[in-house]
Amino acid sequence: MNVAILLFDDFETLDVFGPVEIFGRLKDHYHISFLSETGGLVKNNHGVAVQSEKINTLKIDYDIFLIPGGYGTRREVDNKPFISQVKDLSLSSKFVLTVCTGTAILARTGLLDGKRATSNKRAFDWVMTQGEQVNWIRKARWTKDEKYYTSAGVSAGMDMTLGFLADIHGIEFARKVAFEIEYNWIENMEEDNFFLQ
Amino acid sequence: MNVAILLFDDFETLDVFGPVEIFGRLKDHYHISFLSETGGLVKNNHGVAVQSEKINTLKIDYDIFLIPGGYGTRREVDNKPFISQVKDLSLSSKFVLTVCTGTAILARTGLLDGKRATSNKRAFDWVMTQGEQVNWIRKARWTKDEKYYTSAGVSAGMDMTLGFLADIHGIEFARKVAFEIEYNWIENMEEDNFFLQ
Repeated sequence: MNVAILLFDDFETLDVFGPVEIFGRLKDHYHISFLSETGGLVKNNHGVAVQSEKINTLKIDYDIFLIPGGYGTRREVDNKPFISQVKDLSLSSKFVLTVCTGTAILARTGLLDGKRATSNKRAFDWVMTQGEQVNWIRKARWTKDEKYYTSAGVSAGMDMTLGFLADIHGIEFARKVAFEIEYNWIENMEEDNFFLQ
Repeated sequence: MNVAILLFDDFETLDVFGPVEIFGRLKDHYHISFLSETGGLVKNNHGVAVQSEKINTLKIDYDIFLIPGGYGTRREVDNKPFISQVKDLSLSSKFVLTVCTGTAILARTGLLDGKRATSNKRAFDWVMTQGEQVNWIRKARWTKDEKYYTSAGVSAGMDMTLGFLADIHGIEFARKVAFEIEYNWIENMEEDNFFLQ
């Protein structure tokens, strides 16, 4: 399966590279591309600069489309051409995965309307304003609704990605990957240690 | 504190970007630089290409030096000029942190001789051959011996980095960071869920 990872300036480092670690090591199953609105180096405020290809919505061939969060989402939710590209990529992909405030970007496309979704705890109230018709789930490690997977903050993207692997390849496959990267995977999407009443 | 992250082709994605997420968000305390032998884009087999500066051992000013693992370590342990640069950077840094098979690279400098160190479970036998005088600890999430911190495989680098923060800033500070990134931190360096008898 072809995996497209969306990048934009001020993406959150681990939102991207947690899932990339997991998909990336499964070379027999997944091939990763990094996409951005302009192509070239995309930077964030952790000092990271990553190479990306320019999004070409005329030539879409991705099975999995992953949208990370980060401070850049506060700007990008109002970038209409970008949201339009995200919508095209989401519609054409078999699965769409969001991490943290990446859910706000997907919510802006309208594609999450009526669907279950979650996001970062500390940005939740803002994220909810980006999609008032979304069925927001505040207590969740991740959610799944049809082809849309959404995760809680930062590290939760890894649990969601392993959960996605379990859905596709079976739980023993996902457990083996978690073991190889010595990650204490939260297998239950409802087990959320970071929810505060 | 200035944090230098070592890069080389075929580094392990999360070995680098787990710690980068943690140090990177603490902008009042840490500033990150990415270093490599040649400078420019450094690539790995997960499709990642990251911008780096060329190592200049005449101009070293780093407090923390972090060495990741990955398949590239199998090649780099025999790269004598590179190991010499790693030794210079390690000697001049206040703290040296290794993740996964990054410990093999540090072991090759001789600086771990007589010190406690750990590494990736699945590469442990190979890593041990890179430093026969090292006091290898097979069951550990991470180890600390004077200024040298070493971690087990991949994800363990995040637990070690949080453990480092606890040593510098206190455990409540580290717990707050773990909470913010919704990471289930293993606080005890001896709690190793991935050790097999």
